[in-house]
Amino acid sequence: MLPGPTNVPERVLRAMFTHIINHRSQDFVELYTEVIEKTQQVFQTKNDIVALSASGTGAVEASVVNLIRKGDKVIIPVNGEFSGRLAQMLEWQGANVIKLETPPGQNATFEQVKEAFDNNKDVKAFYVVHNETSTGTQVKYLDKISSLTSRNNAFYVVDSVSLLGGAELPVDKWKIDVCITGAQKALAAPPGISPISVSPRAKKHMIENPPPTMYFNLARYFKYYEESKHTPFTPALPLLYAFREALRIILEEGLDVRIRRHKACSDALYSGLSGLGLTPFAKEEDRSISIIALNYLEGLEDNTFRNTLAKKFRVLVAGGFGNLKGKVFRVGCMGEVHRYHVMRTISAISSTLNMMGYKTNTVDALQVAEEKLKNL
Amino acid sequence: MLPGPTNVPERVLRAMFTHIINHRSQDFVELYTEVIEKTQQVFQTKNDIVALSASGTGAVEASVVNLIRKGDKVIIPVNGEFSGRLAQMLEWQGANVIKLETPPGQNATFEQVKEAFDNNKDVKAFYVVHNETSTGTQVKYLDKISSLTSRNNAFYVVDSVSLLGGAELPVDKWKIDVCITGAQKALAAPPGISPISVSPRAKKHMIENPPPTMYFNLARYFKYYEESKHTPFTPALPLLYAFREALRIILEEGLDVRIRRHKACSDALYSGLSGLGLTPFAKEEDRSISIIALNYLEGLEDNTFRNTLAKKFRVLVAGGFGNLKGKVFRVGCMGEVHRYHVMRTISAISSTLNMMGYKTNTVDALQVAEEKLKNL
Repeated sequence: MLPGPTNVPERVLRAMFTHIINHRSQDFVELYTEVIEKTQQVFQTKNDIVALSASGTGAVEASVVNLIRKGDKVIIPVNGEFSGRLAQMLEWQGANVIKLETPPGQNATFEQVKEAFDNNKDVKAFYVVHNETSTGTQVKYLDKISSLTSRNNAFYVVDSVSLLGGAELPVDKWKIDVCITGAQKALAAPPGISPISVSPRAKKHMIENPPPTMYFNLARYFKYYEESKHTPFTPALPLLYAFREALRIILEEGLDVRIRRHKACSDALYSGLSGLGLTPFAKEEDRSISIIALNYLEGLEDNTFRNTLAKKFRVLVAGGFGNLKGKVFRVGCMGEVHRYHVMRTISAISSTLNMMGYKTNTVDALQVAEEKLKNL
Repeated sequence: MLPGPTNVPERVLRAMFTHIINHRSQDFVELYTEVIEKTQQVFQTKNDIVALSASGTGAVEASVVNLIRKGDKVIIPVNGEFSGRLAQMLEWQGANVIKLETPPGQNATFEQVKEAFDNNKDVKAFYVVHNETSTGTQVKYLDKISSLTSRNNAFYVVDSVSLLGGAELPVDKWKIDVCITGAQKALAAPPGISPISVSPRAKKHMIENPPPTMYFNLARYFKYYEESKHTPFTPALPLLYAFREALRIILEEGLDVRIRRHKACSDALYSGLSGLGLTPFAKEEDRSISIIALNYLEGLEDNTFRNTLAKKFRVLVAGGFGNLKGKVFRVGCMGEVHRYHVMRTISAISSTLNMMGYKTNTVDALQVAEEKLKNL
């Protein structure tokens, strides 16, 4: 139950057991075009897709170095490790970064974002971390952002590394120019492949202003794909096989069904864990579907709690990030998370709390969770 | 018989069939420290190692962005796609690049390199592509370079993506500050992991001058490794399992034995294929052990030849790169290449030539090859 990398179905692991092919062959073309086309379906887009052989951070960096130039004004909400890291990359690139800072666990409101646009008519791009993995918050007004970016043709960039595939994010409908995710989160593939979608106008901008960089130079990827359906550099082949299989599984389940499953499991985890007396770290309206960050109860020690949970009950959860270390723990609700994961996680956390001297009502907690899962 | 990615033993493929672990756990520490320690043995170094989740080009780019700053004078021999690409990255970084250009298939001599050092006393770094995959040349005086770089403490950087593990390259003995390779070449692992070694003085320089970049920021990797034996970003876990298994296999075989095997197989391929009437593209003294580039015989069409070889005889070789397309083909001799690969490749190429109307003497060709393999 980690906030990534998440569980991977055996079908996906087995897909890697394939002899290494030539990445300049027809076999590769078949593999890669299927990956690209199925990723487009999952992103709900007709935009170009590049599947980078890198972590999510690498793909996020690619969105910065290919789109932003010195002096460009960029608005970005910042309230955690990953949004902070993204703001740092924008600053390194020389952007004039307008940070909408809010306390961890709480998002900038849409009104605050709108105000920032009103005060910065010359904004070049809006960057946003959809789901802040470090604190368990999720921005819930992404559908409304294009009403702001469209005013002056600002680029709209969404880092949805830890959520895409687990919540609604229709790239074309919401007019997102650049959207990034990672294979190892809600898509339930192993880490190492990070897809990025690029709208025609962002692509044109990137091709006309190629960055002085090699590995993350997206114009180079567009060129190779158009000419031969190849990638410019040797891709991580076994991970592409795994990712293709994960995409097939997602489309077999159906994206709508998958998103409903994530929502039901998430609701059940929040209800059940709250029923045990735990309180979510994030403000109610900003809570993430896929990352449930919970405050530690008074006196509950991080390592002892997580080790007991792991060793006695075989449930892995993550600790806090940065200065939230020891103050919160995080339960992932992404990818291969089903009814039985939810129920045994609540039950295991309850038993662990009991073992550590905290009284909980397991039966009630399981009942409220079961209620949320009844339509699954 | 591709010049990479190369054949991977089943043990290595099987190693990827492992459930995904937390990259912030003790399980990961055990995996990653074994990878680092065994890579040090294969590099013959005590230097720090970072195993990047990226292709070889990504790791080569990391060596540039972490070491070189605007105005730094850098000497680099250039005679093919990969050395040209590296020179391009150095220029993008703002270096004053002294290119020692020679025709493809022919290396700058040691005397030319020495002369460049004599004429540029203020050189900051010497970059060299050990083995030029695009043309089948190999630089054979890497043992002597430190006599030049030591004069003014210039950094010595070797891109050995397509050779390390298949030829002698003792990093510490030859005083190489930064050495880069890729998992998918002579190390016989799948593509996607690229290790880079960094000497103490290069490391100090990198930490004191961190680049404004995230994914390839080596100072960040050093810090995470020292603090927790973790990587700063989610690594490509299945590929690390595969790479560890490949390293175990290399050390079980013995690095010396492996290097002798590569040399014998390479000698046998050169002799046998020459015996069929084919001529190597590279100048004799500059010929690569691991990439055998051969000129097409008059009238021999690239695609027909390679398709026949692949479809009738199940032997894959690569075409030429860039403007050598259609003029040469390339046979890889790296990683899992043994007697039977060599013999069946010569035999298959001979049969293909015969089918296409060229007369060859298969028996003689196999005999001269067998002679070279007799000490294996």
